[in-house]
Amino acid sequence: MPVAIALAQLNFTVADIAGNSRKIVAAAQAARSQGADLVCFPELCVTGYPPEDLLFREDFIEQAARAVAEIAAQTAGIDVVIGCPRRRGTQLFNSALILRDGLVAAEYDKIALPNYGVFDEERYFSAGSGQLLWRLRDVRLGLTICEDVWRPGIIAANREAGADIILSLNASPFHAGKVHQREQIICGLSAAAQIPLVYVNQVGGQDELIFDGASFVADREGRIVSRAAEFDEQLRLARFDEGRPLPDEIAPAYSPVLSEYQALVLGIRDYVYKNGFQGALLGLSGGVDSALTLALAVDALGADHVEAVLMPSRYTLDMSVEDAIAEAEALGVRYHIIPIEPAVEAFNALLAPVFAGSGRDATEENIQARCRGVLLMALSNKQGKLLLTTGNKSEMSVGYATLYGDMAGGFAPLKDVYKTLVYRLAHYRNTLGAVIPERVLTRAPTAELAPDQKDEDSLPPYALLDPILEMYIELDMSAADILERGFPEEHVRRALALVDRNEYKRRQAPPGIRITPRAFGRDRRYPISSAYRGAASFSRPAGKE
Amino acid sequence: MPVAIALAQLNFTVADIAGNSRKIVAAAQAARSQGADLVCFPELCVTGYPPEDLLFREDFIEQAARAVAEIAAQTAGIDVVIGCPRRRGTQLFNSALILRDGLVAAEYDKIALPNYGVFDEERYFSAGSGQLLWRLRDVRLGLTICEDVWRPGIIAANREAGADIILSLNASPFHAGKVHQREQIICGLSAAAQIPLVYVNQVGGQDELIFDGASFVADREGRIVSRAAEFDEQLRLARFDEGRPLPDEIAPAYSPVLSEYQALVLGIRDYVYKNGFQGALLGLSGGVDSALTLALAVDALGADHVEAVLMPSRYTLDMSVEDAIAEAEALGVRYHIIPIEPAVEAFNALLAPVFAGSGRDATEENIQARCRGVLLMALSNKQGKLLLTTGNKSEMSVGYATLYGDMAGGFAPLKDVYKTLVYRLAHYRNTLGAVIPERVLTRAPTAELAPDQKDEDSLPPYALLDPILEMYIELDMSAADILERGFPEEHVRRALALVDRNEYKRRQAPPGIRITPRAFGRDRRYPISSAYRGAASFSRPAGKE
Repeated sequence: MPVAIALAQLNFTVADIAGNSRKIVAAAQAARSQGADLVCFPELCVTGYPPEDLLFREDFIEQAARAVAEIAAQTAGIDVVIGCPRRRGTQLFNSALILRDGLVAAEYDKIALPNYGVFDEERYFSAGSGQLLWRLRDVRLGLTICEDVWRPGIIAANREAGADIILSLNASPFHAGKVHQREQIICGLSAAAQIPLVYVNQVGGQDELIFDGASFVADREGRIVSRAAEFDEQLRLARFDEGRPLPDEIAPAYSPVLSEYQALVLGIRDYVYKNGFQGALLGLSGGVDSALTLALAVDALGADHVEAVLMPSRYTLDMSVEDAIAEAEALGVRYHIIPIEPAVEAFNALLAPVFAGSGRDATEENIQARCRGVLLMALSNKQGKLLLTTGNKSEMSVGYATLYGDMAGGFAPLKDVYKTLVYRLAHYRNTLGAVIPERVLTRAPTAELAPDQKDEDSLPPYALLDPILEMYIELDMSAADILERGFPEEHVRRALALVDRNEYKRRQAPPGIRITPRAFGRDRRYPISSAYRGAASFSRPAGKE
Repeated sequence: MPVAIALAQLNFTVADIAGNSRKIVAAAQAARSQGADLVCFPELCVTGYPPEDLLFREDFIEQAARAVAEIAAQTAGIDVVIGCPRRRGTQLFNSALILRDGLVAAEYDKIALPNYGVFDEERYFSAGSGQLLWRLRDVRLGLTICEDVWRPGIIAANREAGADIILSLNASPFHAGKVHQREQIICGLSAAAQIPLVYVNQVGGQDELIFDGASFVADREGRIVSRAAEFDEQLRLARFDEGRPLPDEIAPAYSPVLSEYQALVLGIRDYVYKNGFQGALLGLSGGVDSALTLALAVDALGADHVEAVLMPSRYTLDMSVEDAIAEAEALGVRYHIIPIEPAVEAFNALLAPVFAGSGRDATEENIQARCRGVLLMALSNKQGKLLLTTGNKSEMSVGYATLYGDMAGGFAPLKDVYKTLVYRLAHYRNTLGAVIPERVLTRAPTAELAPDQKDEDSLPPYALLDPILEMYIELDMSAADILERGFPEEHVRRALALVDRNEYKRRQAPPGIRITPRAFGRDRRYPISSAYRGAASFSRPAGKE
């Protein structure tokens, strides 16, 4: 007998229990009218994911429980599978609830609780301990929640218990390459157990995390027979006949650069609107970071909701102003030009008596960056627009940024984007329409805080710096390991030393969008007070051991 | 036969494996020369605690393992119990190692891994599964690590396995009242199992955490027979005869306000020196927060290493300047006076064309605060002194502070100190020597960012606000619960709404010293993008349910 299962790949808001409930009810009714027998929503869809320490609040858990009852009452005529935290005695579970005929008909508790990377689920939840099979006509569905299908044994245990199809509720965060990795591993486990699998993922941005959707259906050979689009809300029907999924549209998987670009656009849009801002603004310098950030913001919010501010100083070259204006005009955004010299001079004069006798150093560069920060924050405060910072992951790694200066702002779209990827994304954006002037993409990067300054005066060339950073930060490789791969010792030494000593800056950085397997933030929890020096392993030369 | 166990209550630095090792060897040699048979160090003393994500680095784990071998080689003649992370296969354990005759003679793995509050130990460690008894002459020591002695059953299991004395290695963080709570619970479990207990805690500040020491020995009736001082390094001998501890000096437990004051002093000192700063500076406003912060900084670092900056504006009353000068002179610290008007005027002039037609709002107040931030950071950058922020927990809770303005700085000593406690601590400090002018303690709190401004124009009175905040933030109470205790609805509503909406500011705040059971930071992980509104439960009036 054929059955139809709807995959509700939707964008929920953390703690907006009333809004999420309305969305669930509407999607369930739409799925029923399309002929679905069952509709499956993502993990913890009632509360949004991840609710973090809100899970410790009894009022929050109770509100979610009341919402489940209300959803059940409004979704008769179709089986509805939703995710919700669920109190039982003193324990809290990450549960899937099956609603039928206005009631909660069955519950399943997540078994595998991830407690690594960005996940802290053992902080909140007790682990479930058994399978749940749900009969839908003549088919038995085995329920799983997110991490369950990654951990060896749980899909197979469902198969052995008699499941015909695995139903998987997810809130699986994006990083570049994640769709491929996810399908590779989960379809492999599914094929090994010879059972088809329905994978429902949420979509949307939540602070630093992006959920990419890409929900799919795999057959018992582990082949994808249906895939929903990435980064978009979708309600998709999967039809099964004799327990076998019928082929359907397979949305093409995005290339890395395209998926990264879309993730950044979605991340900006959701952060701005979920936090109630009217739009965004940013400082436009004529460099590639702010150029890309502006293009992303316009693609996320529309040109009418974005504003650019040019703040030239005595060190700003004419071409920087020209290119910034050209981009603002190409994108059709409003822009202001506010030269910072009067403010910089006021500070220099105020500090002159105290600084008498000391030479010029980074202090004077920081004052310029901080004057820009004050101006941008004043505009943000006055207009209720979110200030976007434009720094990239290379800069965040080595601390090549001024606290309360160019780091001032509410959200940092490029925080997890290395400089070399900034260029790739900018080139990609120009293929959709040339908005970033060619010169911005070809001139040497400069902070323009001193005469003839170039990033490479202070830092290794980005083509070398970025892979060194990736090995050190994301792969936890030692200096010796990196050196062994042929990177020049002076660059490795300098890069690692800068990463080690700039944890304090990162701790005060605004949140940004995670697009790599390890971003700064929840993902990398380093002490500030720390004597760890990655470059110190150089002092044990291999030849002398 | 008598045995003597030395309790090494020392201050370690995270990741300073070489320095920590030297400290361990020196203390072991001192303990041996004092006649100790065994010396016990705190949890993870080799790496310092908590090493956080450094635990994912293989080079770090290997370096710690090499250090253990070196410590063993240098501590012959005494049994040495140290804490160190320990790799076994693919698993990492939080272990206690017993060194005898130059070798690692026994290992114990922590069973109870805390994964709540500030703790993330399940992120890193696998749990041990069995007891270790160590024979010291005719006495059998049962080993435990920190959380082990809090969890029911582990002390008793050691007793049943034949232990005569429980030896407990700890890194137990301070909050007000923790010493009492710790002794109450652990001595209770020890008395229930009728076994004496030796509790060794580390001392020192590590980023937001303070470890208070207060190591102790309890007899089998659960009575404290010996206690080391709080907040101080100590090497103390505990003598046992026939398995019973002999009475020794019991350091008196500090009163709450005294322990809080000492915790803040230690926290500042360790943050400044462990991060390599030469001293500290701060903005001194004439208000009580900066007055207390200055006194704490001087008590932590000495007057020669502290600098105060007065930055009056047109709204600063003469008495503010007078009182600030009086305090700086009473404490003997160098101070500067830098009026901010020229910088404020420069910004106002630059922004006038853009702001034309819009009225005055918080933007103009923030500009003043941010001008002060720029000046203070310039002084910090030029001199290599750590900038201390002076905001308190009440302000951090409700967002009554300017990002990149008064929130600019590397460390926030009062971040976890409610305003009412700021006054108590200031009064206490004046009992040691009157340094804070009386008028600072009696005048109404004001930010002095607008004419005749008072905190209570914007906020509930602190005497009501602070308990509301404590119930909401630390106890997770709902609005209805708080209201039931008789707090005025308008104040509860306002306080909760402000807490909810200001998570974004707290996320960019500098680290500060935790002195309550729940500080902002690792302790309270709230989403920024969140529709949770604690005050919304008002919309369900009790009478209508």
